[in-house]
Amino acid sequence: MKNRQWLLARRPHGAIQDNDFQFVETDVPAPGEGEVLVRTLMLSCDPAQRMWLATDTYVPAVKIGEVVRSGGAGRIAASNAPGFSVGDIVFGTTGWQDYAAMNPKSLNKLSPETPLELAMSVLGTNGVTAYFGLLDVGRPVAGETVVVSGAAGATGSVVGQIAKIKGCRAIGIAGGAEKTRWLTDELGFDAAIDYKSENARARLKELCPNGIDIYFDNVGGDILDAALARLAMRGRVVLCGAIATYNATEPPPGPKNYINLISRRGRMEGFIVFDYMKRAPEAIGALAPATLRRLFEGRNEGKQLLRVAE
Amino acid sequence: MKNRQWLLARRPHGAIQDNDFQFVETDVPAPGEGEVLVRTLMLSCDPAQRMWLATDTYVPAVKIGEVVRSGGAGRIAASNAPGFSVGDIVFGTTGWQDYAAMNPKSLNKLSPETPLELAMSVLGTNGVTAYFGLLDVGRPVAGETVVVSGAAGATGSVVGQIAKIKGCRAIGIAGGAEKTRWLTDELGFDAAIDYKSENARARLKELCPNGIDIYFDNVGGDILDAALARLAMRGRVVLCGAIATYNATEPPPGPKNYINLISRRGRMEGFIVFDYMKRAPEAIGALAPATLRRLFEGRNEGKQLLRVAE
Repeated sequence: MKNRQWLLARRPHGAIQDNDFQFVETDVPAPGEGEVLVRTLMLSCDPAQRMWLATDTYVPAVKIGEVVRSGGAGRIAASNAPGFSVGDIVFGTTGWQDYAAMNPKSLNKLSPETPLELAMSVLGTNGVTAYFGLLDVGRPVAGETVVVSGAAGATGSVVGQIAKIKGCRAIGIAGGAEKTRWLTDELGFDAAIDYKSENARARLKELCPNGIDIYFDNVGGDILDAALARLAMRGRVVLCGAIATYNATEPPPGPKNYINLISRRGRMEGFIVFDYMKRAPEAIGALAPATLRRLFEGRNEGKQLLRVAE
Repeated sequence: MKNRQWLLARRPHGAIQDNDFQFVETDVPAPGEGEVLVRTLMLSCDPAQRMWLATDTYVPAVKIGEVVRSGGAGRIAASNAPGFSVGDIVFGTTGWQDYAAMNPKSLNKLSPETPLELAMSVLGTNGVTAYFGLLDVGRPVAGETVVVSGAAGATGSVVGQIAKIKGCRAIGIAGGAEKTRWLTDELGFDAAIDYKSENARARLKELCPNGIDIYFDNVGGDILDAALARLAMRGRVVLCGAIATYNATEPPPGPKNYINLISRRGRMEGFIVFDYMKRAPEAIGALAPATLRRLFEGRNEGKQLLRVAE
C-alpha cells in the first residue's frame, strides 16, 4: 500500500503550471502517539490555496518539497487518540495525499449522515464563511441590496441565498451566461451580472439605483472598484478574498475608489473563517439542507471537489 | 462700505493658482426675512476646501462664479432672526467674504469667552473631527499604538493628544523636523516620523514592532500603504482625509496593501464630521482648554487661520 502525494516543486509564477508540482509515492505513515491516520476521501479546491503556495499570509506558505496544503475529508484508518475510532469521518487539512498522520486537534468530525459534498461546501467551511462574513461582518438589514462577486463559487452562492433569507435583494457577479442563469433561475438571486460579457460598472448602476449596501468581495481588482463607485451611504464592503489578484506577478493596484468610504461613511472589513470555526455549529444548524438544497439540485456549480477514494 | 469677495474663477488643475480665483467688491447684502448678516472675523483654512473646488463629494462642488466656500467665524451685524442679536459671535460657512447674509440654521453660536483661535480649531470642527473619528470610529483601547498622519495639522495634532489621554502610544507623521519636534516636545507624542527626510515604512516598522492598532489617516497615498503594511491584528484605519491626493490631476492609485485587511482582520472606515455636529458639545466639553492648552503654547502649528477683521 503506497501513499500518493503531490509536493510543491516550485512557487507558481502567474497561472499554476503542472511543473509547479511533483508526484511521488511514499510509504503510508504510521500515526505517532496521540495521532490518527486519515485516509483521504475527498479534497477541497479553494482559491486561497493559490495564495498558500505563494507567500506567508494568515498561515505560513507551503514549503518547497512539502505536501500541497488542502482541506480534505477522510476516514480514520488507525487511531492512537482517545475519542477517534477507525471509520470516523473527519475534515481537516489533509493535503494532496492518500494518507495523513495527523494530530486530531486539527480535525473536525463530520456526521456520517451528511453527504460529503454538503459537509465540504455549504455545511462546511464555505457555508461558515458565507454565514459569518455576511451576517457578522456585513450586518444586513431587510430591504438592503447585497452584491456578491464570485457569486457562482462555493462561498458566493451561499452568500446570495442567505441574503435572500434575510429579506435583502441579492445580486451576483459571475463569469459566463451559464453561471448567471444558475444564480437567478436555480438559486433565486434577484439579478446577476456576467462580468465577461457585460460592463459591470454600468450594470451595477442600473441594478442598484440606490447604491450597494453590502458588497461581499471574493475577487478584488476592477470589480471591487466598480462596487466602491456605487457604495450606498453607510455601505459595507466585506473582504473575503481577491481571486482576481492571486495569479498576479506584480503587486496589483489597489482600489482607487476606497476614497468613497469617506464621503459615503463606508466600512471595508476583512475576516478569516478560522476565527469563526468554534461557532461553526451555529452556522451549520442555520444552513440546514432544507433551505439550501437548491444548491445541489441544479448543476453542481458552487464547489469544486475532488474525490480521491470511496 | 463694500463687501470684499473672492469668487471661484475656474476649477483648479493640480496645485491651486492665484488665477483660479477672482477678487470683486460688491455691496454689502441686506439680510432677508429670517436671515442674519454676518461680519466675517476669521476664516478657517482646511484641506477639504481643495476638494470642494474640484468636484461634487459629500457636498456639491462650489460653482464657477460663486464665493469660495470656507468655514468662518463672524459677528452678527444685523438680525432679522429671533434668537440672534447684533454682536453675537457665530461659526458657519461664511465663505471668503467680509459679509454674508445667512440662514441662522446653518450657524453655531460661539461662547464670547473662548478665544476665536480655539473655537475654530481644537474647540471647533477640528476638535470634533479628532474626537469622534478617533473614539467612535477608531475605538482605542489603553495600551494600543495609534499612528496619525498629517499629525501637525489642526485635526491630527488633537488626535495624538486624545490618544495619549486614553492611555495609548501616539506616533505622528509630519513633514519637516520643526513639526516633528513640536509633536514630541510640546504635544507629548511618543514619537514622530518626518516623512520628508525619513523612510516612513522603515520607521513604522521600527516604532511599531507589534503593529499599528489604529491608523488615523489624513493623507492617503504612500503613507496609507505603509501603515496598512504594518497593521496589527484587528487593526483599524480611520479615513478622515487624503490630502496627498487632492491636487492629483489623474485618479491616484489606491492602497494596494488593502488586502492586509483580510489577513489581519482589519477594518477601514470613513466618516464625515457633519454627522457628529449634534454631539459637538460632548467633544468640546471633553477637549477643555486645560487638557489641550499645550496646543497653543508652542508655535501655532496646528491650524491655519486667516484673521479678516477685529
